[in-house]
Amino acid sequence: MQVIKTIREIREAVYTARQAGKTVALVPTMGALHEGHGHLIERARRESETVVVSIFVNPLQFGPGEDYGRYPRTLDSDLDFCQSLDVDLIFCPDPPELYPQGQKTFVEVDEIPRELCGRSRPGHFRGVATVVLKLLNIVQPDRAYFGEKDAQQLRVIEQMTADLNVPVEIVAVPTVREPDGLAISSRNRYLSPDQRQSATVLYRALNAAHQALCAGERESVKVLAASQAVLDQDPIVRKEYLEVVDAGSMSPVTTVNGPVRIAGAVWIEKTRLIDNLYWKGE
Amino acid sequence: MQVIKTIREIREAVYTARQAGKTVALVPTMGALHEGHGHLIERARRESETVVVSIFVNPLQFGPGEDYGRYPRTLDSDLDFCQSLDVDLIFCPDPPELYPQGQKTFVEVDEIPRELCGRSRPGHFRGVATVVLKLLNIVQPDRAYFGEKDAQQLRVIEQMTADLNVPVEIVAVPTVREPDGLAISSRNRYLSPDQRQSATVLYRALNAAHQALCAGERESVKVLAASQAVLDQDPIVRKEYLEVVDAGSMSPVTTVNGPVRIAGAVWIEKTRLIDNLYWKGE
Repeated sequence: MQVIKTIREIREAVYTARQAGKTVALVPTMGALHEGHGHLIERARRESETVVVSIFVNPLQFGPGEDYGRYPRTLDSDLDFCQSLDVDLIFCPDPPELYPQGQKTFVEVDEIPRELCGRSRPGHFRGVATVVLKLLNIVQPDRAYFGEKDAQQLRVIEQMTADLNVPVEIVAVPTVREPDGLAISSRNRYLSPDQRQSATVLYRALNAAHQALCAGERESVKVLAASQAVLDQDPIVRKEYLEVVDAGSMSPVTTVNGPVRIAGAVWIEKTRLIDNLYWKGE
Repeated sequence: MQVIKTIREIREAVYTARQAGKTVALVPTMGALHEGHGHLIERARRESETVVVSIFVNPLQFGPGEDYGRYPRTLDSDLDFCQSLDVDLIFCPDPPELYPQGQKTFVEVDEIPRELCGRSRPGHFRGVATVVLKLLNIVQPDRAYFGEKDAQQLRVIEQMTADLNVPVEIVAVPTVREPDGLAISSRNRYLSPDQRQSATVLYRALNAAHQALCAGERESVKVLAASQAVLDQDPIVRKEYLEVVDAGSMSPVTTVNGPVRIAGAVWIEKTRLIDNLYWKGE
């Protein structure tokens, strides 16, 4: 496994793989790797001959007052983890390598970033779309892997790559959960043991909504009431949003008549957790 | 010369050239080809083994009330022209091929588009940057060629490709002029013979500013006064702007102490003409 910090060297390494006729997969991450990333990497490993994992905590997608500074940085254990999963290339640039003199160019996606996380995190998806496009242009993979846990991010990236004709296949990988249902996330490590126990309430709330849909309920307000009743059981969990959204546009729907996601964000003290469940429609 | 209308086919044709070890150049145009484009194509022909010319009048870069509908479309003569210059591939998609279901994703460049043409054409450079990125992603050339006549556009594209790490070399080609100095432009054909004669006043005005700089003048206000005196000679020419701008940021400067462009836009009845001259500084 090669660990590379510069654009020039990662391009050379990928070029060498290409010259040998190998297909290339990219798994973009912000590090603090966990089992969720592990599933992305394993899937990439099965489907491509060269696997590149990028590790970069992207300042552009954090707003003022967000956790950019304290976001977990665990490069040594990340490298061990990647090594154990037979990754070929790690691309872990320092911020000035990707943003050498500020950045004047931004990728803006309409509609999809408007609701859910976009409401409380203005500019977040602009930062995500911009850095992902940069990474895709640097590595030029055949496929890039993203988790469904960040469903809105996934849709932004799908839309961006389609609209800009980026020659890459975006692969969506299902959310990985702890045995009690909590979606695995780098931010889970912020949680105290008590908070960790409360954190499952988000998954249980989404599940209640999912069950309401399975039982035939089609009015979002009623579907969400089922969720809210679960959330109300744990007063230390503060809801940021809970919505039933169209699975394509990520805009809230009043009545469910096609594929949707039930998506939620909650705060437990200073830790923000998100999760979602897909409902494929009739 | 192959004439191709779909993304799939142009990608296949470029892929075939690549497999044969050939380098690829792209000359993006809106058609209505003239000697200016000819210089771009000839330069591309000298420097690359496969030359692709795209012909696409991009609706995204025209504002409401602009000349999208009446912009000259001369595909047959454009194809003859390209054939005569030994072009390999023409990519001339219909609008739905590039914008199949509306476009939600846009490339925004800060600062550079703010002044000059950006003032009167909000959204223009967003449309330019977006379509150029799409074309670069579709064709994936080694080099792409742009004229210095559209200096602000050129800077937007240079900045965009650098900021987004697009793996392409942007080649700037000097403005081609008629014997009397008028910059060659597709929009020149809108001019009546009388208007055509008046049109040279823009070049003469820019030249007066350039001469003032050569003579040692460094205050933009005085440099521009020299231009304005020339423009005032022809009352049918209406000034939109005349500025001395930093050659990198394209923002107006008060005092010239580095490379600048003297840039102007004028209207002759309903026809808008732009031109600029570079001044390299001391």
